[in-house]
Amino acid sequence: MANFGGHAIPGSFFLLYGLWLTVKHLLQLHWRRSQPKARNEMPPFLKKMEYFEGGLQIFAAFVGIMVEQFVVDGPHAHLYDKENDSWVKLMNWQHSTMYLFFGISGFVCVVSTASKLLPVGADRFALSVALFVEGFLFYHHVAHRPHLDAHVHTLLLVPVFAGSASTMLEVFKRNHIILELFKAGMFILQGSWFYQIGFVLYPLRGPEWKLTLSDNVMFVTMCFCWHLAAAMFIVAATSALVCYNLKANGHLAWVAMKVN
Amino acid sequence: MANFGGHAIPGSFFLLYGLWLTVKHLLQLHWRRSQPKARNEMPPFLKKMEYFEGGLQIFAAFVGIMVEQFVVDGPHAHLYDKENDSWVKLMNWQHSTMYLFFGISGFVCVVSTASKLLPVGADRFALSVALFVEGFLFYHHVAHRPHLDAHVHTLLLVPVFAGSASTMLEVFKRNHIILELFKAGMFILQGSWFYQIGFVLYPLRGPEWKLTLSDNVMFVTMCFCWHLAAAMFIVAATSALVCYNLKANGHLAWVAMKVN
Amino acid sequence: MANFGGHAIPGSFFLLYGLWLTVKHLLQLHWRRSQPKARNEMPPFLKKMEYFEGGLQIFAAFVGIMVEQFVVDGPHAHLYDKENDSWVKLMNWQHSTMYLFFGISGFVCVVSTASKLLPVGADRFALSVALFVEGFLFYHHVAHRPHLDAHVHTLLLVPVFAGSASTMLEVFKRNHIILELFKAGMFILQGSWFYQIGFVLYPLRGPEWKLTLSDNVMFVTMCFCWHLAAAMFIVAATSALVCYNLKANGHLAWVAMKVN
Amino acid sequence: MANFGGHAIPGSFFLLYGLWLTVKHLLQLHWRRSQPKARNEMPPFLKKMEYFEGGLQIFAAFVGIMVEQFVVDGPHAHLYDKENDSWVKLMNWQHSTMYLFFGISGFVCVVSTASKLLPVGADRFALSVALFVEGFLFYHHVAHRPHLDAHVHTLLLVPVFAGSASTMLEVFKRNHIILELFKAGMFILQGSWFYQIGFVLYPLRGPEWKLTLSDNVMFVTMCFCWHLAAAMFIVAATSALVCYNLKANGHLAWVAMKVN
Repeated sequence: MANFGGHAIPGSFFLLYGLWLTVKHLLQLHWRRSQPKARNEMPPFLKKMEYFEGGLQIFAAFVGIMVEQFVVDGPHAHLYDKENDSWVKLMNWQHSTMYLFFGISGFVCVVSTASKLLPVGADRFALSVALFVEGFLFYHHVAHRPHLDAHVHTLLLVPVFAGSASTMLEVFKRNHIILELFKAGMFILQGSWFYQIGFVLYPLRGPEWKLTLSDNVMFVTMCFCWHLAAAMFIVAATSALVCYNLKANGHLAWVAMKVN
Repeated sequence: MANFGGHAIPGSFFLLYGLWLTVKHLLQLHWRRSQPKARNEMPPFLKKMEYFEGGLQIFAAFVGIMVEQFVVDGPHAHLYDKENDSWVKLMNWQHSTMYLFFGISGFVCVVSTASKLLPVGADRFALSVALFVEGFLFYHHVAHRPHLDAHVHTLLLVPVFAGSASTMLEVFKRNHIILELFKAGMFILQGSWFYQIGFVLYPLRGPEWKLTLSDNVMFVTMCFCWHLAAAMFIVAATSALVCYNLKANGHLAWVAMKVN
Repeated sequence: MANFGGHAIPGSFFLLYGLWLTVKHLLQLHWRRSQPKARNEMPPFLKKMEYFEGGLQIFAAFVGIMVEQFVVDGPHAHLYDKENDSWVKLMNWQHSTMYLFFGISGFVCVVSTASKLLPVGADRFALSVALFVEGFLFYHHVAHRPHLDAHVHTLLLVPVFAGSASTMLEVFKRNHIILELFKAGMFILQGSWFYQIGFVLYPLRGPEWKLTLSDNVMFVTMCFCWHLAAAMFIVAATSALVCYNLKANGHLAWVAMKVN
Repeated sequence: MANFGGHAIPGSFFLLYGLWLTVKHLLQLHWRRSQPKARNEMPPFLKKMEYFEGGLQIFAAFVGIMVEQFVVDGPHAHLYDKENDSWVKLMNWQHSTMYLFFGISGFVCVVSTASKLLPVGADRFALSVALFVEGFLFYHHVAHRPHLDAHVHTLLLVPVFAGSASTMLEVFKRNHIILELFKAGMFILQGSWFYQIGFVLYPLRGPEWKLTLSDNVMFVTMCFCWHLAAAMFIVAATSALVCYNLKANGHLAWVAMKVN
């Protein structure tokens, strides 16, 4: 969807998902630390969070696919137009494919919380694959565009592939809090960068950006680092807030968890 | 072999091998879980599976080399034609080289099952090298072709090198079920993608694909992701089937294994 | 700052920081070896070193940013010039961004020494990100320059990214002395190479270097390896000196540490 | 040294070094397996092997540097010719630099065998750096040559960088026999490929190779895989021989080791 809104919607989703992951992993860490070593079972409250997360992923992926397919100028589930010998709205199909893999990731998340038959780490693996596919499609999506357009999309690949790699590492190194917060930070960075792409390609006000000016490319590269710093700050601030609350209301909180 | 069959035959082999690996590794996992920790010896049934797998690899590689060499328009074991100062049928020699390494892999598989002298992990190492050589030769095989032709072959490198890397990781992380199923999935993806290459370059019916059309490249990239989703689904479904059968007939199955 | 001094100042900083890291990590190693296994607390002296290091990083980053912004021909905190529709002194902004991340690294270093709330390894992670951002900005900074100019800057990326990677590895492998000394060596190499860049682009005496001569590129590549050998020698010599001193005055030294 | 001999001499060295490493690591493995777990000290015989290896590396590096510098048409230790404003015989200087790093590796090998002050793994680290520098210089050495010439040198980088990476891994995974034999195999492959480069660029008899013919490039790529198969076979055969001898004369051999 080639307008500002089409970048703001996924941006908001990724931002919120990053915040959610930060909170979730800190609660899990707190739980692990407060338990005797032998117990490894998650409490019902944390399990419910996983179900909610997985369910939301499935729901969002489903809605996303439906919107991409049945929006007014969408392909309406037609892939090939035999009359004109051409593919129908490949961009929408590509976005649908991305959503599909996030849906699969949500499905694996739900199943691996519900059942112990799935190997430990399958949920991280599925999320890593979803990010890889997103990056893979974006990578081939970018060629043959004006310099600045290609550049802002290429920069998006940094958090996507870094997140995919760190999530894959989590398959082997479970419950490593730095990896988990890094993953959360990469989602936040991805979200905020989606907004930035929207601002650059479809400015809400002011003049259009010259897409071939070398200074614009240089600024955008630097701006990406500021987004990275902001993402690190957001993760740190959220973490501090969660830790402070857990300390202040620690007993109450866990009572609530056990009640649930 | 530049026709549809020449892509369907290796494709079928890789598909079946991926399914075989899925079943094998799940049986091994089940065996490990059902054994007391001290025992590490594989039961005769699983050993026989390894012999069969290795033997089949050797046999298939031998047949493959023979066919490539002594097919009607093959090189008949001639490498250099002194009269014309030119190499003879290098493509066939290249395919023979690929088969050779899978043959070596099969040989190492048999020897490492039979004897304890080989270091643990040598079989995985040999399979990883075989995949690396396949990817290495394909990589140099692809240059100077029309865009779409080069692209479908480049996409084949993804499962080949990903499979090679994950198999190499298995040398260090033995019996990690996610790695093992990932390897199986990459073989299935490779197999189904061979079919796709056949369909694109040598369509059985309908018009030829325009090899330079940018939309075709875009569709093929997306189609690759669908194959990936399908490969993941096939591995998951096969795993579910195997697990269900083991649960239903568990005792019977192991009795059979011990009898063998 | 496009002159010799502008390369000598960061060069000196990195050189000294590399030496500092060598000494610090050897003292830490000596402390760990002299302690019974149970104790893991750093002695006050080593803690003070961490505070000093972090504080200095914050201070240097602050001074660096101020100088880049408020130097005579600097941007004076203006980012966009609306009258001319152009960015203001992006190079200075870029350098400020690099300093910012080293400042963040210093901040994390101080906080993680003071408090146990931060996850173990957060300081290494922040330093690794700072190096990554430095390399990331340099990488995009280099394009479209004469061959030799681009080449000397590209070679700088080797110690920057190698240092970033090895520091990231330290997040997972704590207290591995070879990784720690490698990191120190990469800082020394970076520092000495900054001097070399200064000598090549702004020679203090003698003729200017021809920036397109292929022999110059070849010499500079080889010269980089000599710098690497020198960096390895400096780390080795410093280590030998520290170890000799610790052996000679071992008891005295630790008494001093405990007193502090 | 641009002739056949100039490629055969380093080729022979690397081939022999690979064979030596195969034998050494198998003897070490045998020793480790035959010892009770507590003992970790190497026997005098294996220590002597390390001294010999390190000493030979230092000696060969010294001779190599001397030859490169003081051969008739060498630079005679002159680096810059002020009269002509040009560098003197940079190729010889480049080779000298490569030898220097292998000399350093030999020095570290000797010191780390003699003293326990060096951190465990320093010898592997130094060897890995030596290989990296070799590959690094070759990589920049290759540009701007005819296609086939560039290609055969690029293929040389595969064993060089693969060897460097696997040796670096040995810093973290000590005494992993597959890694050790892989390193040995990469040295053998490097050695045999040096011979192949000699045969291609300076054929002893027969016509010169056409350096731009695409079929030649294709053959050489495939030929590299055959060298890889041969290197794997040589390592396997040598290993089998060593194991057979150790089994046959096991007691005698260890008696001899202890006597030494």
